[in-house]
Amino acid sequence: MIKVGIIGYGNLGKACEKTVRARTDMSLVAIFSHREVSSPFGTPVADFSQLAQYKDKIDLMLLCGGSATGLIQESNFAAKYFNTADSFDTHALMPRHFAEMDEIARASGHISLIATGWDPGLFSVMRVLFDSILPVGDTYTFWGRGVSQGHSEAIRKIEGVKYGIQYTVPKQNAIDVINEGKRPALTTRDKHERVCYIVLDEGADAERIKNTIVNMPNYFDEYDTTVNFISEQEFKDNHNAMPHGGTVIRSGETNGMVINTEFKIKLQSNPDFTASVLVAYAAAAMKMKAEGRTGAVSVFDIPVSYLSGKSYADLVKTML
Amino acid sequence: MIKVGIIGYGNLGKACEKTVRARTDMSLVAIFSHREVSSPFGTPVADFSQLAQYKDKIDLMLLCGGSATGLIQESNFAAKYFNTADSFDTHALMPRHFAEMDEIARASGHISLIATGWDPGLFSVMRVLFDSILPVGDTYTFWGRGVSQGHSEAIRKIEGVKYGIQYTVPKQNAIDVINEGKRPALTTRDKHERVCYIVLDEGADAERIKNTIVNMPNYFDEYDTTVNFISEQEFKDNHNAMPHGGTVIRSGETNGMVINTEFKIKLQSNPDFTASVLVAYAAAAMKMKAEGRTGAVSVFDIPVSYLSGKSYADLVKTML
Repeated sequence: MIKVGIIGYGNLGKACEKTVRARTDMSLVAIFSHREVSSPFGTPVADFSQLAQYKDKIDLMLLCGGSATGLIQESNFAAKYFNTADSFDTHALMPRHFAEMDEIARASGHISLIATGWDPGLFSVMRVLFDSILPVGDTYTFWGRGVSQGHSEAIRKIEGVKYGIQYTVPKQNAIDVINEGKRPALTTRDKHERVCYIVLDEGADAERIKNTIVNMPNYFDEYDTTVNFISEQEFKDNHNAMPHGGTVIRSGETNGMVINTEFKIKLQSNPDFTASVLVAYAAAAMKMKAEGRTGAVSVFDIPVSYLSGKSYADLVKTML
Repeated sequence: MIKVGIIGYGNLGKACEKTVRARTDMSLVAIFSHREVSSPFGTPVADFSQLAQYKDKIDLMLLCGGSATGLIQESNFAAKYFNTADSFDTHALMPRHFAEMDEIARASGHISLIATGWDPGLFSVMRVLFDSILPVGDTYTFWGRGVSQGHSEAIRKIEGVKYGIQYTVPKQNAIDVINEGKRPALTTRDKHERVCYIVLDEGADAERIKNTIVNMPNYFDEYDTTVNFISEQEFKDNHNAMPHGGTVIRSGETNGMVINTEFKIKLQSNPDFTASVLVAYAAAAMKMKAEGRTGAVSVFDIPVSYLSGKSYADLVKTML
């Protein structure tokens, strides 16, 4: 039985709570937060400052805070006392995060799995797999159709926006061209479009808000963006979920023959699937720890035999 | 530099020859066959009976014979003298093949990678990965559109058939239903159809041949089969390649939320892609051997970091 703790109780933390509770090889000990929170399942809640006191009560700490809001610091601290698994997703900072976690976890004798979910995570595995089996080719990653939290927050900050949500939508014609075996050079605008649904405050200027959105640097200016103004009722009826999805495609060749490989996901809930992947990989990392491995690891290190709850003999018999 | 030998010089052996020649970390030493063959690239050819004499000249032997025609015996023999990688694909016999190869390779101090290609191989990895991250759900494997060698041979044996080829075609409506998040119970007939193209011998009875095909036990009787009679010219123009493809889909759920994961490939050449996967995984197995691992291994044991020719730091920086 792996004794588990969760740091952070937003969407991902709540999803991890359910995922851990559904597993027969894990027991959930406590949730840690900087805020006052409570669990609908009665999971004990503690303040983040009490973390070190749980040193002997928890084997594995799941880091579920936001990458922009302290996840690195929380992971660094947690790895002194626990094995950890995090969903850090700032691609540009991966080498630094890996190196820091590796040093801390080696010193404390723990294993620290970093950057696990679907992207980074499953999509990263596919990028390396596809690149390895088809060294000649180009890999493309598409995200969506799904809700981008960052872009949704950006539009909600605009004055006059009562409710707002943003969907990232891959351009199907770009995917179709790749699937024909071509290897196009695609700009940011060629790959995705952005679709917003807005409920205005009473008397707000729709035209100003639309212009503010479509010209917003980094977030929207490099994309084709559509802004839809809808009623509060329609917003509450149709835009209350967190679906997502995405595709990793490689268009390549071997011995002069055209080959396409594609991995595609469609998610009714982004945080619940992220939790499912994070917890499965964390359980695999704990098996590696049991064999003596310490330091930082990533999804690249973990063979699927470690991920499965089934015996190796069963896998060979039923899935090979 | 890994010194490589190839046993078997049919479609897969020829594709492996090209694949090995294209790699910078391998050199091809010799091809072994039971028949008299010659290489267009001038690769030295030896009779299978001379295999043991190459004990000190070859590190890795690629087994490229047919599963129905001696691959097991050839793998067993080769593992006494070399590290091996084979493409054994008879699913029902996997546990026995794994156990035999494990015993032989442990005794001789070699590593033996079994059952590697795209199915078994990549598709097996996806089945285990999907099952592990989504324990609640159903996994479906579809093959095609592509040429089935076994079915093509079966129709070519019918009297009156001059040339014949059979394409296995997945039923798109079955895939669509699964991608809607449903988990249908599918019969053999629901999943695939079979499409044959036949050139008749002069004066042959088309109706008799068609009936023989569609009623052929195991091969065709459980499928919707279409038989097309075409001219020799059309056959030579349009049916001279070995395209294939396939899909592994899991329709599952986590925390009550519907999730779909799909892996799909489209291949201009089945043997060339099989060779590409086999050789990449064989190179990974050789890295495990260098770390001291011996005995049988499968694709389930191999993390993607071992597959890649890139450094771990590079993978973390560019693909995580």
